[in-house]
Amino acid sequence: MIGIEDEKFIRGNVPMTKQEIRILTIAKADIGAEDYVVDIGAGTGSLSIEAAKIAENGCVYAIDKDPEAIDLITQNAEKFSVENIVTINGEAPEALEQVKKIDVALVGGSGGLIDEILTAVDAKLKIGGRIVLNFITVQSLASCLNWLKSHNNYKYEAIQVQINRLQNLGFYDMARAINPVHIVTAKKFRHNQAANVISISDAKIRNAQPVQIKGIRD
Amino acid sequence: MIGIEDEKFIRGNVPMTKQEIRILTIAKADIGAEDYVVDIGAGTGSLSIEAAKIAENGCVYAIDKDPEAIDLITQNAEKFSVENIVTINGEAPEALEQVKKIDVALVGGSGGLIDEILTAVDAKLKIGGRIVLNFITVQSLASCLNWLKSHNNYKYEAIQVQINRLQNLGFYDMARAINPVHIVTAKKFRHNQAANVISISDAKIRNAQPVQIKGIRD
Amino acid sequence: MIGIEDEKFIRGNVPMTKQEIRILTIAKADIGAEDYVVDIGAGTGSLSIEAAKIAENGCVYAIDKDPEAIDLITQNAEKFSVENIVTINGEAPEALEQVKKIDVALVGGSGGLIDEILTAVDAKLKIGGRIVLNFITVQSLASCLNWLKSHNNYKYEAIQVQINRLQNLGFYDMARAINPVHIVTAKKFRHNQAANVISISDAKIRNAQPVQIKGIRD
Amino acid sequence: MIGIEDEKFIRGNVPMTKQEIRILTIAKADIGAEDYVVDIGAGTGSLSIEAAKIAENGCVYAIDKDPEAIDLITQNAEKFSVENIVTINGEAPEALEQVKKIDVALVGGSGGLIDEILTAVDAKLKIGGRIVLNFITVQSLASCLNWLKSHNNYKYEAIQVQINRLQNLGFYDMARAINPVHIVTAKKFRHNQAANVISISDAKIRNAQPVQIKGIRD
Repeated sequence: MIGIEDEKFIRGNVPMTKQEIRILTIAKADIGAEDYVVDIGAGTGSLSIEAAKIAENGCVYAIDKDPEAIDLITQNAEKFSVENIVTINGEAPEALEQVKKIDVALVGGSGGLIDEILTAVDAKLKIGGRIVLNFITVQSLASCLNWLKSHNNYKYEAIQVQINRLQNLGFYDMARAINPVHIVTAKKFRHNQAANVISISDAKIRNAQPVQIKGIRD
Repeated sequence: MIGIEDEKFIRGNVPMTKQEIRILTIAKADIGAEDYVVDIGAGTGSLSIEAAKIAENGCVYAIDKDPEAIDLITQNAEKFSVENIVTINGEAPEALEQVKKIDVALVGGSGGLIDEILTAVDAKLKIGGRIVLNFITVQSLASCLNWLKSHNNYKYEAIQVQINRLQNLGFYDMARAINPVHIVTAKKFRHNQAANVISISDAKIRNAQPVQIKGIRD
Repeated sequence: MIGIEDEKFIRGNVPMTKQEIRILTIAKADIGAEDYVVDIGAGTGSLSIEAAKIAENGCVYAIDKDPEAIDLITQNAEKFSVENIVTINGEAPEALEQVKKIDVALVGGSGGLIDEILTAVDAKLKIGGRIVLNFITVQSLASCLNWLKSHNNYKYEAIQVQINRLQNLGFYDMARAINPVHIVTAKKFRHNQAANVISISDAKIRNAQPVQIKGIRD
Repeated sequence: MIGIEDEKFIRGNVPMTKQEIRILTIAKADIGAEDYVVDIGAGTGSLSIEAAKIAENGCVYAIDKDPEAIDLITQNAEKFSVENIVTINGEAPEALEQVKKIDVALVGGSGGLIDEILTAVDAKLKIGGRIVLNFITVQSLASCLNWLKSHNNYKYEAIQVQINRLQNLGFYDMARAINPVHIVTAKKFRHNQAANVISISDAKIRNAQPVQIKGIRD
């Protein structure tokens, strides 16, 4: 199963996807036992390890530009006895050239290159494959949604996840917030078959107006 | 894997745990292939079915007092080809008498009887077993936390989960809130071995004061 | 107007109500120019100062048990040229004895004595008066709601407020969470005239069951 | 004071800014008694009326393209005895031509024309003036932030506000979510004097990378 506790990972100074975000990201990716997965901006490898345990007959490519991260991924893979992770010390999109056809792409860090990464991922992703992306900035999220809207062979859903942990203080439990994350899940279809993706035109933008105004005051 | 899409379940008028809450609940329950699970207030059976798919050599007892719910659980089990669900048309805590020793209890609806249900669940739960509860009211959550604090063989964590879905409106994506849910996860230890559970006394309440004041203004 | 920026207050090590929570708390208190206000657990005095500026012909009693807080309140009152604050270095409920009849009570820190504080506030609060309370723990919130439910001359509303600040990182804006706070606003009526307060019995608890189950899965 | 209860407004079918969002929007606008204010996408006029009560010697221009909205604003102004609102039945940015120099602009509905509206508002806004905008879509928020970043005489802050109301169900209080809103507050300075606004270049985007990756996993 998924959801290794945060403190069980060897962490160093490399940041890590929090357990609840990790659980939702992996579940949305719908990974199968034979799947090939790429984890872009793999950090400590927490997503890679959860993915590798499910894709037991497949493989996870863990990409990170930071050598310290690569080292941690290797250590964590050993700690959790996971043998189907291939680490790639490099930066997306270039580093994706070393990757075969994939079923799933997990994108944690995009470094301001979300369009280029999505294009490179798309080139490797099989029909039926999934991309699951985590965002903490408005701009990266907006860029991603824009890319997906302009590719009519992708169907997506997007959520914002806000987790508050109740910290035990003896008799009391106090709510402590974790920074919210947006999770975007996109599925690849054959061209023009992602039926519910709406084509966009300037006319649409104006037409969206009444809806938006209605929304904002609702 | 977990996370069946909401609209794939046959629903009728019975309410259903939303996909993201379901994913987190099932992941926190840490279900094994041989586990015996009870789902209290099973509703449409969405949690039961996700649990039953994981506990493939075990069994899920799906309890609901509403005959319509029992009917839906049966239909959904058939739809998802799940054969290890036993439905119990009754009300917790009484209905728990029909259940064997369990590894996991999922508690969706408590109907104001959270203490009684926890006591009955405890009587059936193996050492090492997990209880995962979903709450939408302040009072049920507070009662549950109080029960857990007064049982020194349980260790718990609690989170609040707030999900906003981005609704696609052509060019725009608009945030739509889902009602927040608290998820409490408790693990059963041998007596006095849940080390981090703090014993409570009236003195503690007063002692908690500086912490609380610090917290509220932080 | 209300909403002094957080960094304008002299703070020391005393925690402070964040600007957005302060704005909502003061607005919900519906303070008038002639009002007498008590601020319990006044901390840096940020709420007291905002209240005192509105209650320009009235008075704000700022109660805190910490002498450092009293000192900060005095400094901040001077900084913001507010002259209608009376500081009381003591602990509620006892310290409330020094207070006259009041129109508004603001309760930031309750130190586990929420029932006693509400009872003491009630003794000083005029008919038509408002109590606005901030909570960060499940238990204090639950205690407060319980007290209000058992007093049929109070009508209340309660909200949870979660604020994320977007931190400017050059091209990007990243969401940073602030710990959520519950704000409870109660208005005092003549006995039995708070029409929408529902009387509670054990029967009610059972009757609430279908609603709750419906809620949790909705 | 601010924070008229939602149900006190005459509403019709026109959507309305919820009380808590209204309180924060008005407080962030820091309106003075002599201020000239424009409310773009005024809807029922709820923001206009709160603003007009504070700007008692100034004036509020309430712009809406929907004649039904204009009618409701007029009715609500009468109900709340507010006489300093001038309604303009038209669409921003064009409708802004009828407006004098302003101290404050409130922007509720932008209808996909956020850039054009900000440019037109800027032309009317005095040095020291404030723009407070409410957003419910990722794209409008991102466009607004982009406009502000590229104008070095504006300094801004942005927050996301999520309110859950506790609905009273007899013994229980159940959390009900309201759709989240982003509130952006921008203040106008003389050219090049909004010190903390960072100039942006493509190089910056790449440089932002480590921060972003750090953020997302933090």
